[in-house]
Amino acid sequence: MRAIVLASRPVGIPTLDTFGFREYTYPKPLPIGSIGVKPRWFSVDPYMRGRMNDVPSYIPPFRVDEPITSEAIAEVIESSSDQYKVGDLIRAQLPWAEESAVDARFVTKVPNGDLSPTVYLGALGMPGLTSYVGLFVVGALGRDDVVFVSGAAGAVGSLACQIAKVSGNYVIGSAGSTEKVNELKALGIDVAFNYKETDPKEALRLLTPDGIDLYFDNVGGGHLDAAIASLRNFGRVALCGAISQYNSDSLVLGPSNFEGNVIRKRLRVEGFIVSDHQNVRAEFEDVMTRWICTGKVKVLETVLNGFDKLPEAFLGLFKGTNMGKMLVRL
Amino acid sequence: MRAIVLASRPVGIPTLDTFGFREYTYPKPLPIGSIGVKPRWFSVDPYMRGRMNDVPSYIPPFRVDEPITSEAIAEVIESSSDQYKVGDLIRAQLPWAEESAVDARFVTKVPNGDLSPTVYLGALGMPGLTSYVGLFVVGALGRDDVVFVSGAAGAVGSLACQIAKVSGNYVIGSAGSTEKVNELKALGIDVAFNYKETDPKEALRLLTPDGIDLYFDNVGGGHLDAAIASLRNFGRVALCGAISQYNSDSLVLGPSNFEGNVIRKRLRVEGFIVSDHQNVRAEFEDVMTRWICTGKVKVLETVLNGFDKLPEAFLGLFKGTNMGKMLVRL
Repeated sequence: MRAIVLASRPVGIPTLDTFGFREYTYPKPLPIGSIGVKPRWFSVDPYMRGRMNDVPSYIPPFRVDEPITSEAIAEVIESSSDQYKVGDLIRAQLPWAEESAVDARFVTKVPNGDLSPTVYLGALGMPGLTSYVGLFVVGALGRDDVVFVSGAAGAVGSLACQIAKVSGNYVIGSAGSTEKVNELKALGIDVAFNYKETDPKEALRLLTPDGIDLYFDNVGGGHLDAAIASLRNFGRVALCGAISQYNSDSLVLGPSNFEGNVIRKRLRVEGFIVSDHQNVRAEFEDVMTRWICTGKVKVLETVLNGFDKLPEAFLGLFKGTNMGKMLVRL
Repeated sequence: MRAIVLASRPVGIPTLDTFGFREYTYPKPLPIGSIGVKPRWFSVDPYMRGRMNDVPSYIPPFRVDEPITSEAIAEVIESSSDQYKVGDLIRAQLPWAEESAVDARFVTKVPNGDLSPTVYLGALGMPGLTSYVGLFVVGALGRDDVVFVSGAAGAVGSLACQIAKVSGNYVIGSAGSTEKVNELKALGIDVAFNYKETDPKEALRLLTPDGIDLYFDNVGGGHLDAAIASLRNFGRVALCGAISQYNSDSLVLGPSNFEGNVIRKRLRVEGFIVSDHQNVRAEFEDVMTRWICTGKVKVLETVLNGFDKLPEAFLGLFKGTNMGKMLVRL
């Protein structure tokens, strides 16, 4: 069996050389309370780029020569826990290995239902809760707001757009290709633009001359700059991600005329991390399940096949090759 | 009688040429409901710089060749209102004129008490309410927070520092001279530094290696940059003013590594304008009067004498010539 490790810490944009393969077996016999699992799907997520740097953050950095970890759906192949039996489908943070062992306390059972198990890595998982928290808890979303979502075709963005729309708001999305823009329109988003063709500041000026009320930021940089300029009085920014900057290896300059805009328009700019907001998870799962089952929220996924594709899938996040949630199926 | 008008809109730093003198008399007979007043003290405030630009904002711009206006304490010299009689002391937004008339509906009576009337232009007026709102409403100040206040020897800053201190917090102030730093220490502020000698980022690193919880921003620019870097998890910025930038005539770059810091540390950055917060005025006046009368908050004032000194007093705000509230006595 094999694992994929962090071969070296990337400076700037990671490449295939950032990753390395090595032999891997999990300890046998299994420690009491652990389960042996065979991953079926891995999630790759932009926040993982931060873990490749050796700097303290809200989660510890990956270690060089140790397996990368990410959220996964896996099948139980061996169990020394009385909570799980062979054949169960679970969700957990797992090493990038073809088989591994995990302490059953850090594992969640995947419900047996009509929904694809992958939905628990996306719309009903961390990206879904992220979009919900960003809109309602941080963004104080009401009705009839003009909401701007960047990275709108991504895992979090495509859900944030749809949730804002379902909740009775006008939604503008930005994405990086014509194909994505068309997909957003097919999802019922009011307007979408390709930021590689139209500068976000120019696009917002054209599409919403009276400004926006809430900006859900997955991108940062020029998108944040444009949003700060466009926001109306008492507007809010939910700072969720800044994928345009994760690979930057120099000082990143902040939005221009920031203080003047924020004071004059009484803006609120707030960063958040989804793990701080577990208290809304039950409410979120309830509402989101309803939206998915009634077709009000559509699940977008991009799936690559094969364990070896994990590095490529991860690198694709920064090239924008994914529509919706990026997954690797084993 | 004379008035001081906006002679021309300044580009960059205003100068004495920004202002002009002209003859001025108020309409006689007085319109019904108006009073004729002779100003005794004028307030000059940094926000007035914004009104010199011809751009829409939360208050309309000054008009060229029309008198500048600012808050003032004045004596009633003539009245066609049954609410005010000759000799009353009032507070109102008044034109920079040796005598003027004002609609009695826009006037507040200055209480007859032991406090100097000027306190209603400072600690018990707009600057006082600004510091209170910034700390408690926007900044969610608790106890045992580390609070950083820039422009700490200014009208708002000197009050924000003292209120934060009285409320059981550790307070760091920055100011632009040794004299001001010493004055802040005399007021009981825990630490103060001269930002012209020590860069704010360096100063915060030395003075509070574990970081700050709340930044009360009167200055913007490098101070905001330093605060964003220093803030701890769940820290807040109350963006009150940005005096370092009011005279800028080009694009102002925002704080560096902004998105990364704000997300990773879950920061909240919020701008405010005091006039939105009249609902806390009664509470503020009650508490602040007690603090002033018991000596827990000291009132700092810099007073220039003579109507002709109004332009110089205003220009002094941007040179930092004032300690506490800048006033002109007529």
